[in-house]
Amino acid sequence: MIAGIIGGTGQMGRFFAGVFQTAGWETVVSGRRTELTNRDVAEMADLVLVSVPIRATAEVIREIAPLLSEDQVFCDLTSLKVEPVRAMLASRAEVIGLHPMFGPGVASLRGQTIVATPARCSQETLDTLLSVFREQGAEITISTPEDHDRMMAVIQGLTHFVTLAKAEAIRRTGTDIAESLHFTSPIYRIEMGLVGRILAQDAGLYGAILQMNPAVPEVLARFEEAVLALREIVESGDADRFQEFFAANAAHYASYLVSATEETDDLINHVVSGR
Amino acid sequence: MIAGIIGGTGQMGRFFAGVFQTAGWETVVSGRRTELTNRDVAEMADLVLVSVPIRATAEVIREIAPLLSEDQVFCDLTSLKVEPVRAMLASRAEVIGLHPMFGPGVASLRGQTIVATPARCSQETLDTLLSVFREQGAEITISTPEDHDRMMAVIQGLTHFVTLAKAEAIRRTGTDIAESLHFTSPIYRIEMGLVGRILAQDAGLYGAILQMNPAVPEVLARFEEAVLALREIVESGDADRFQEFFAANAAHYASYLVSATEETDDLINHVVSGR
Repeated sequence: MIAGIIGGTGQMGRFFAGVFQTAGWETVVSGRRTELTNRDVAEMADLVLVSVPIRATAEVIREIAPLLSEDQVFCDLTSLKVEPVRAMLASRAEVIGLHPMFGPGVASLRGQTIVATPARCSQETLDTLLSVFREQGAEITISTPEDHDRMMAVIQGLTHFVTLAKAEAIRRTGTDIAESLHFTSPIYRIEMGLVGRILAQDAGLYGAILQMNPAVPEVLARFEEAVLALREIVESGDADRFQEFFAANAAHYASYLVSATEETDDLINHVVSGR
Repeated sequence: MIAGIIGGTGQMGRFFAGVFQTAGWETVVSGRRTELTNRDVAEMADLVLVSVPIRATAEVIREIAPLLSEDQVFCDLTSLKVEPVRAMLASRAEVIGLHPMFGPGVASLRGQTIVATPARCSQETLDTLLSVFREQGAEITISTPEDHDRMMAVIQGLTHFVTLAKAEAIRRTGTDIAESLHFTSPIYRIEMGLVGRILAQDAGLYGAILQMNPAVPEVLARFEEAVLALREIVESGDADRFQEFFAANAAHYASYLVSATEETDDLINHVVSGR
């Protein structure tokens, strides 16, 4: 079997080339500086995997879709699924959207999650592909492109938005970060680590996740409402109203509180023991 | 030396009683169900440590302040320092505010931070007290009550506010948390763990930290501005404007990005390896 990776010279492309090689597949790769073109790869490979930045994905898919036959499998790796899957369905190939929930810096697939949105494929094709990932330790979540994008508006969109807004707010207060870390609780250290981590990465990826997912504006509207409501309660000074707000959320998340506490106890012990 | 802990039957009071006992001090304790009263403890102890909920602290301090002499040391453990320290200074005792940056569930002081705000004391008294904590592994940050409270408006106030607003927003979107965790990236898992963790705890503590710190409203105003500004940029769809917003923050946090990435790589590996 041959896996053809378009954008295969980028970090994520190289990572997945390694995954298929580990599984015993041959790989062919195209990128900006390769001799092979996207067209060459599309013609040679049994499975064509598009691994280019989100904003370039639809164009690359449209370029190669007409070249693929029904004996081939067409996949992408972007953080959104509705639009890329729709574009891939214009081909005659079997279509499976993929979203690896990790960056290319991980050591292996062990313990990592990949979301798969099979759109047009046989069970056998799906099993063959997913077994490559599962045998290297990945957990697979099956979804539809629509459910995936709605969930990512919360999991990625809201999470990244909040982290960036927090960075901006702290900057606007004029707080010295290095000084603040001398006052740190382990939780603040973790939270600030997540702020620094995102800002060390590629703005283009985060911008695309926030600006291109049609489910994001709705989630941000809910967040802004929540901020306004909670700020008003805090500034009212009314302890009972704060208690009610808190209790409503404690009840909503009730089934999750024990495992969340155990997991974060473990994280905090890990942070503290490393100091 | 005798440490007298007022509110010493609560979790934090018991923890600090253990700390002083480990250091070879005698301890006496008062609480709602003890035979000894707060007055008894204030009269017996060389060091009087108030360990009661924030909202009760000023009243308890006012009750015992008149009983203390200049040969005694007066401390509290609350998350705010301006008001409790001002109240303690009404006594004749030496005064040192303390803020342990951890909860009573920790195994020991090792790797934990305590902020101390010495307000009226000799260097010898301060050294004697802090050596108790340092010898058990704590890191001490010295501050003033005013600087402490301004810093805590960011470190605790903003952090808790954002976590609670995120919980409320996710609740308002109707997202199923258990389902969302099947789509999880390690970072979302950490962030949701911090949401669940706070909601498993005492609303009164978080309400007091947010509602009683006079520096909090200013920080929340900056956060609301940041949310409105970033939301507008996201919804404009303008990739360049997003890039500018991101780059301004990446530049502000530049000196922190490498260590933040290393620390969170380590956290993520820890989360992933535990799955």
